[in-house]
Order: sequence, then structure tokens, then C-alpha cells
Amino acid sequence: MLISKLVGNRSKDNPSDAAIKSHAYLVRAGFIKLVANGIWSLGMPAKRIAAKIEKIIREEMDAIDGQECSFPVVMPRELWEESGRYTSIGEEMVRFKDRNGRDLVLGMTHEEAAVHFARDNVVSYQQLPFMIYQIQTKFRDEARSRGGLIRVREFTMKDAYSFHISQEDLEEYYEKVYAAYTRIFKRIGMKNVVAVKSDSGMMGGSVSHEYMLLTPVGEDTIVICPACGYKANMEVAECQPQSFSDEVSAQKEEVFTGDAKEISEVSAYLNVPDYKTIKAVSYNIKGETTTVLCFIRGDLEVNEAKLKKIIRKEIVPSNLTDSEKLVAGNIGPIGLDTTDTIVVFDASLKGANNMVTGANRAEYHIKGVDVQRDIAVKEFFDIAKVKEGSGCPKCGAALTISNGIEVGNIFQLGTKYTKSMEMTVLNKDGAQVYPIMGCYGIGIGRAIASVAEESADDKGLCWPMSIAPWHVYLCPIRIDNEEVRAKSHELYESLRKAGVEVLFDDRDASPGFKFADCDLMGIPLRVVISPRSLANGEIELQMRDGSLKTNIKYEDCVGKIAEIVSKNIV
Amino acid sequence: MLISKLVGNRSKDNPSDAAIKSHAYLVRAGFIKLVANGIWSLGMPAKRIAAKIEKIIREEMDAIDGQECSFPVVMPRELWEESGRYTSIGEEMVRFKDRNGRDLVLGMTHEEAAVHFARDNVVSYQQLPFMIYQIQTKFRDEARSRGGLIRVREFTMKDAYSFHISQEDLEEYYEKVYAAYTRIFKRIGMKNVVAVKSDSGMMGGSVSHEYMLLTPVGEDTIVICPACGYKANMEVAECQPQSFSDEVSAQKEEVFTGDAKEISEVSAYLNVPDYKTIKAVSYNIKGETTTVLCFIRGDLEVNEAKLKKIIRKEIVPSNLTDSEKLVAGNIGPIGLDTTDTIVVFDASLKGANNMVTGANRAEYHIKGVDVQRDIAVKEFFDIAKVKEGSGCPKCGAALTISNGIEVGNIFQLGTKYTKSMEMTVLNKDGAQVYPIMGCYGIGIGRAIASVAEESADDKGLCWPMSIAPWHVYLCPIRIDNEEVRAKSHELYESLRKAGVEVLFDDRDASPGFKFADCDLMGIPLRVVISPRSLANGEIELQMRDGSLKTNIKYEDCVGKIAEIVSKNIV
Repeated sequence: MLISKLVGNRSKDNPSDAAIKSHAYLVRAGFIKLVANGIWSLGMPAKRIAAKIEKIIREEMDAIDGQECSFPVVMPRELWEESGRYTSIGEEMVRFKDRNGRDLVLGMTHEEAAVHFARDNVVSYQQLPFMIYQIQTKFRDEARSRGGLIRVREFTMKDAYSFHISQEDLEEYYEKVYAAYTRIFKRIGMKNVVAVKSDSGMMGGSVSHEYMLLTPVGEDTIVICPACGYKANMEVAECQPQSFSDEVSAQKEEVFTGDAKEISEVSAYLNVPDYKTIKAVSYNIKGETTTVLCFIRGDLEVNEAKLKKIIRKEIVPSNLTDSEKLVAGNIGPIGLDTTDTIVVFDASLKGANNMVTGANRAEYHIKGVDVQRDIAVKEFFDIAKVKEGSGCPKCGAALTISNGIEVGNIFQLGTKYTKSMEMTVLNKDGAQVYPIMGCYGIGIGRAIASVAEESADDKGLCWPMSIAPWHVYLCPIRIDNEEVRAKSHELYESLRKAGVEVLFDDRDASPGFKFADCDLMGIPLRVVISPRSLANGEIELQMRDGSLKTNIKYEDCVGKIAEIVSKNIV
Repeated sequence: MLISKLVGNRSKDNPSDAAIKSHAYLVRAGFIKLVANGIWSLGMPAKRIAAKIEKIIREEMDAIDGQECSFPVVMPRELWEESGRYTSIGEEMVRFKDRNGRDLVLGMTHEEAAVHFARDNVVSYQQLPFMIYQIQTKFRDEARSRGGLIRVREFTMKDAYSFHISQEDLEEYYEKVYAAYTRIFKRIGMKNVVAVKSDSGMMGGSVSHEYMLLTPVGEDTIVICPACGYKANMEVAECQPQSFSDEVSAQKEEVFTGDAKEISEVSAYLNVPDYKTIKAVSYNIKGETTTVLCFIRGDLEVNEAKLKKIIRKEIVPSNLTDSEKLVAGNIGPIGLDTTDTIVVFDASLKGANNMVTGANRAEYHIKGVDVQRDIAVKEFFDIAKVKEGSGCPKCGAALTISNGIEVGNIFQLGTKYTKSMEMTVLNKDGAQVYPIMGCYGIGIGRAIASVAEESADDKGLCWPMSIAPWHVYLCPIRIDNEEVRAKSHELYESLRKAGVEVLFDDRDASPGFKFADCDLMGIPLRVVISPRSLANGEIELQMRDGSLKTNIKYEDCVGKIAEIVSKNIV
């Protein structure tokens, strides 16, 4: 490709809305262009990167017997009503009417379409297991798109769906996908990716993993144990609080605490550590009058994602100032009016003694509380948020907390979709059974942005060879020089014949100008031909990532360059 | 691929709504499945065919310096308002609001997106010409989808847009695309394709060609001259009517014709041939009261598409029974009240004499009319429909009329979009000028269906090797036989290693059952391994299209099969 003809101008100016490197550089390099909020056009370089990522994904999906299909972007309401998601999914799903007044939706995921395609096409357990997948455009009306290609509304995604006769078979296949995903991220050159247990959210099902690229700019929070390798999304990370129980429980006693309402105020007033207090945190169930009242140790916070999974409903923080029965700042589990209230006790309170808690009347708390002795707790739940340094639930070592970008996910779905959509197959005994499903996603645009984010430096992008838009940036210096021009054109042709992808900077411009473009675009191998190097019969090679800088003889450079390229493709 | 695991059951039953072969067989072979009116899922075999067609298209687009990009499926209203098409396009464009109430549309073509992408990315004539293209999903809310993948609502399309500094440069590039399209259709195995001049419709612009696959089931009508090769869509085909002028013009004279109103009645009553009469055909401009009155020779019909291009407005046939000034059945150009009427004379009337026409009063016509002498015609237009046997406008030979499916189109757009969307580049003299555009489309799904339609026989599909989902159907007979099973598995592996794509019928089923599936799915080369042939150390080869049927030695069959496959890829 001649850079003089490439549609996509390079720019020195950071877009005003770009908060992260990948967003800024992809725009500045002319790779992508914003069309509307969360909707982008990809230019040739970005499309080439996408195509290489898609090829790697295809190879790995085909290697685990995936059957590539194509499901529609636009689907009828009826299909989504079968699964119940036409109503359960909110505004993020686009709904519209066609010219005949029929309701249609834009697909944001394709469980329904996959089951629709498979259900009459498969009749017997002998046809199971199978996996069908596609790489296709989806639309999700995100409330806030951000970060260039990181969080968009229109996106291309590889989504795969597997069908199994038993949970065991699903689990076996799930492991294969797990391994395939690990290979995919390695091959596309993402380095710092971890698979973490996650919340399966609107997908349904139970076991699921997210593949997280660890990066400070990630929106997700991940809990990692450096000792045993335990990893989980903060939303589901188990909390193993340290125990601070005393040997002897004191008598409980109501004490005056005046205006002290916040835990820090109460513990200071009574001169006890936060972990010797019981904190009350209240929520309301969305659209209902029911209060959800959580009791948790004073040094911990409530993890709302975990709480939601227990309540199984949407919750919102409640405003207690209007409450008649609850005295904000003095709420406690003893003598509490629980009318229209769901009370949840965190596991941190199990066995705790000599605790301070609200007395359910203004200006008073109770001290000397022994949870087992004084409170009738039916069940403790894990609703506490893990903190940096919290104990690992597996090995007890201190946990670390990182940010991450979700670059892929795998779910065990169970029979949620096959049951609701009435897809059955005959099992060995001739009975109709619902196949058990798994589903597996990777966003292509987000993968592009994630690799860009991880590999970029202060000069620009820096693509791994395996997904670079071109392998080589061919950069003549003084192209007005007869020999330089002749040799660069000759090399351009020879490299292409040798299967090397070359972006040829055929412009009559200064070295600084050309090198800046090369650095910004992040082409892995820069090949410089100048009058000075040619005087020695040489050309200059330099890897964008700094791993190589050398002069080699012009006469055998084609083989050498081809070798460097192939060696750098994982 | 093992057929036992392939998702997509074969069926003997024609879908009730399938009127053409390709529709019926693609469904029956399990290749495609209807999701909603005009919206399909593609199974693995159809997706493989699509991928091969897309690869061929990519190669040919890249060979003429195309830059593959990706424009969005969902676009903002504002973009389409720039070109004026937000209002000019009717119900076929889907419009909806996002969660914040912003108007969005689904792309049915991408001129706007292409200009949006290019306009700040290109600044100088030196960057021209260039062509950007994509292969992407589009949605057009067709009033009547039909024919399986022939006319759908959601479709995948290759759409390309070129930008030029001059009309000459566009024309030069247009020729390159013309040739690339010819290669594409040849390579994907479409045989009977012709390029015909066409009406550019909503695209704007003037010169355009449609690539038509000639087939009796085609919806389009194409005029072809077998002598000189002139080809045109009926909508724009020029009519060259034979002249029937007499040497001497008679006096004009009003004559009683009673109830005779239709041309056939009038000519019978007066005993003259139809071509000696002047027929009046009337229309109304849609939404207006203006009448469009056409006069044309009695043996010809009005081509409404050509008439629309002259009127430049939508027209609808008018009902004259309510008219006060026009006497239906007796309308003529002499003594006509033309208030609120546009009168159009067809070129067939130029120089005509001794004609019969309506007298504009009931029960009377005028005979002996000499058009030049008796009617003040300012301009004649070509509004006549070409008939089988009409004279070719280029060479005069008798024209033939065929049906066709439009499988591709190429348009010269001019500056319609660059002007309306304010895209300029600096020309050599430093002036800002609007680039001149061309656009070029091929529908992938329609290409699949068209090849299927052309090549299918009464047993099923019959794919050309170049786009077949698999090259070889490996068909063991008596797979319960030890040697048959061992040899077929061995051959399956060896062929795959040799790069041959194999669908392996690993089922324990009868030869008839297997052969029927193979024929229905249309896999080009059937390889049969049976105890009988193995007794001679042989296997049987048979091409689906009947071009080969032979036995070869098992020991050297891999090379032989690979050779047949590669020889059959155009």
C-alpha cells in the first residue's frame, strides 16, 4: 500500500474527548472516525487489524469444531418473547416497527437466534455436542459509550453457542473454549490477560468467566490472589473477613452516643475500632416500598452486585430521612421493626462479640453485643466488598485489586433458552430432553482497542506483528535521489512477492515527518533506505517495540525481513 | 466436516412459499432458515459459500486498489439529511430513535458514510483517485421480499465508492470496475451474466450498468440485440420504431366511429392497421392534479420508467371517467384543451402521416392526420416500450427480450454526494473542487441464490468448485465394513492434509439415502468407497455436474482428487 493513497490523515491533535491512549492514537493515526455517539467507521488499517483478529478467532473456533453461521442483525419481537427477554431487557435493546407495523429488534446477543436455528435442525443426542458461532455486527444502546472502540454502541462480535446432552459434557467443552480463548489472546498479542470468575448478569446461568486485560484504564475491578492464583471480578469476589472475636462476651448495654451516627463517629465516641461495630446499610427494591436492610461489620462495605444476586431484584440506595420506623444513624438488629423489610446479615458478623450497634432510638447505641447470643440470625450471606489486602477465600493470603478491560467471556447457560424456546432432542432412552448450553463472546473492536492500549507508548501505537495492519513500514529518505527511489520500489515489489505486507511511504517528506507517522501508526518493522546507508550497500531495520535496531546488506534483505516478520508472529 | 455433526437437516419437502428452485433447495438442504419475512439465518454451508464469494470479491477489489473499510449499519439522521435522502427515501429505510430520543437509520447503502469518512481524510487531488469499499450487513424494508435469498430485507453487500478529480478519470476507473465485475462473476461460476445499461434510480447520477444473470425466473426484463450486442434494462431500453409513413398525405377528416374506443376497436372499425393510429395514454402526477397525456403510435406501449425520467416526478395511471375536458376513448392532439396537462409525444409519431386519432368528442375520430402538418409538436421523446422483435437502436436488427436477476451494479454518481455533503479537495490550480464519485455494489446472498438457481437441476443444488461449501463429498457405502471404515477415515485425513475440503458422510445409511443428500447439497465431487470397489483396490469419482464419472486406484487417489479440485476452480 502506498501511504500517499491511503485514506486516513495522521494528526498531531488529540481528540478532545479522548481520555485514554488507544482512543487518541487510533483517531490520530486515521484508523477510525466517529460517525455518531458510540458508532465508528473503520478505515483500511483498522479493518486489516480486525480481519487478522477475526482470522485467528476463526482458526481457534474451527479447531474446537465450531460451525461458522450467520444470524440476523434484525430480529422479530416474537423470537425474543419466547425467551422472555423482550420485556426483561431494558432500553439498551433497540426496538422499532417495520413498514407493516411489525415489531423488530436489533440483536445485541444471539442466544435466541442460535436456538431458533438449531431447534429443528437437530433432533437426536447423537448430533450433540455441537457449537455454532458467527462474527457479526451487533447494536447495544449503551447509556454511555466511551474510550473509542472500548465501549461502543455498534460493534462486531464473535459469539458462539454450544449445545450438550449433559452438564458434564458442557463442562468438558467449556474447558476447551477456555483453552482456545487463552490461545486467541496470546496469538493476537495481548499480554496481561487473566480469566476471572464473573457474574453472568442478563445471560442467565451460573458459572462464567471473564477474560480481563489488566490495565489501569479498565472499567472493571478484579480481585487477584498473588499466592494461589484465585481471581474474580469484584462483583462476585468472595470475602473472607478476618475474625476479631474476643474470648469473653460482655453484657450488652445501651449507651448514650449523642450526635454520633456515622461508624467513624460512633467508634471514636466509644473508643472502639470500626471492626467492633455493626453498620446498617439500607436499600429499596426498585419500584417497590420494601426496604432491604443490610448489617455488616463497620470496617467493611456492601458489594451491591452480590447483594442483588441474593435479593434477585434491582435495588437502589434508600433515603432513610423519610422513614418513620428507622432512626437513621441509630439502626440496629436488636428490637428492630422489620415490617416490609428484608434483613440481610453479612458473614463478617458470624460469631462476632462485644460489638456496638444502633439502639433504634435517637442518640443511643448498644455495646457488648454478641451476635449469636443476642440476635436471631437465620442465615449469614457474603455481601461484603473485598478490599486490597483482604484475605483470599482460597488460601488466606492478602488479595490485590486491579483494573481490567473485559476482552472476552464464557458462560454456562444451562437450559434457560432451550427450555423457554422449547428445543428438545431425543436422549439415549428415547426421551425428549432440553440441551444444556454454553455461550462464548469476544468483541473485535474492543480487542483492537485493548491491544492498542496495552502496547502503545508516548509516540503512538505499537502493533504485535500478528495483527499489525502491515508488517513493514518502508521508509525511503530522500526519495528524490535516483538510487533511493529505484531501490525502494524494487524492495517494495520483492517484499510483497515474499508475502510481506508493506506500507510504502512514497512521499517526498523529511525523515522526522515520516518516522513520526510510522511511530504513530505503530507498524512493527521500519525499513529505512537512505543515500547514506546505500553507500555501504545497506538498509536500516528497526522494530517499533525497541527489540531490534540493525543495519543489514541490501542484497539479502528480503529473506532477512521475511524471517523477522514470521519469527514475530506468535 | 462430519455430516453427523452438521447442524442443518436435509428435507424432502419443498417449503410451501418457495416458487423457485434456489429457494426450495437452499431451505431443503438445511443451508438457510427463515427468521422473519426477508430475514434469514445462514448455516455453516451457506456461510462457507458466502465466505468464498467474499474472498473472490476482495481479491478483485484489492487488485484495482480498493481499500477495505467498515462503515456503520446504524447511522444518525443528520448524515442522511446532508445528502437530502433522509426525506427523499421512502418507507424502505428503517428509522428509529435511540434511548435519548435521537433519530437513527439502518443503512441500505453507504454513499453518505463513505463521503463522511473520506471528506476530512483527503485534502488534495494528489490523493485521488481512490476507492474505498466494505462487505457489510444492510437492511432495506422491502415491501415484498421473495425467492429465498433473491430479494430479502437484511442482506450482506459489497459496496464500493470511488472518488475522482475528473469525469475522464472516473470513466477510466469505471472500466476497471466493469472488468473486475466480469472476472468476479466468472470466478464465482455464474455463466449467463450480461452487463446492461440501466436506470440509476434513487442513486442519482447518469451512466450505470446492471449485471444481469439471465434466467426465466428473473424479475427484471432485459433487451438484447443478438446482432450487435446492445443490451439494456427494459426500463431504459431505447425504442427505434419502424417507420410506416406513406408517400402522400391525405386530407384530414372527422369520421363517425360510434362506440369504438380502444385502438383495436377503432382500427377494426376503420379498417386500418394499429400502427396507423395515435393512442392516448394518461397519467396523473402523484399527489397533484396535473394530467400527463402521452400520444404514442397505436401498436406501441408506454414505458413508464422512461416517462418518469422525463417528467422527473412519480406518476400513477389516471382514471379519465371523471374528467370533464377529456373524452375517454376519443382523445386526440388536435383541438385538445391542455389546461393543467403535460403533453408528451413519442418519437414513433415523428413524420407519421395518414394517422387516425381521437376527435375530442364522443363517437368521432379524425383520419388522414399528418403529424408534422397538423400538430405543433415542440419535441418528441422516446417513451415507447421495446417489444420482442423491435429494431435495435444501434444496428436495427430484431431485439430479443429476456428475464434476469440483478447480481451487481455500477454507477457513475457525479458530484451529487460530494456537493451536498461539502467534500472538496484542492485541484492542481489550488482551487477547491468537488470530487466525482462512482459506486459499485454486489449482494452476497443474492449471488449465492443466483448461482444456485442457475446451476441446480431436478435433484438439487450443484455448486461450482470455486464456491462450493466443500469440494468433496466422501461417501462410504457399508461403513460397518472394517476396511471401508478404515479407508474412509484415512482418506478423510489425507485429503484434508492435501488442502481438499471434505464433507464426510460418516452415517450408517443406505447408498440411496447418502447419494440423495449429496445431490441435494450439490457438493461438486462425490467420492464413493464401497466393499465392491475396494475389492479392485479402487474408489469411484463422480462430478455432480455430470462432467466426470470414473474409478481410480485408491493408492494414488489423493493427488488425483486434489488435481480435479484445483482444475475446476476458475
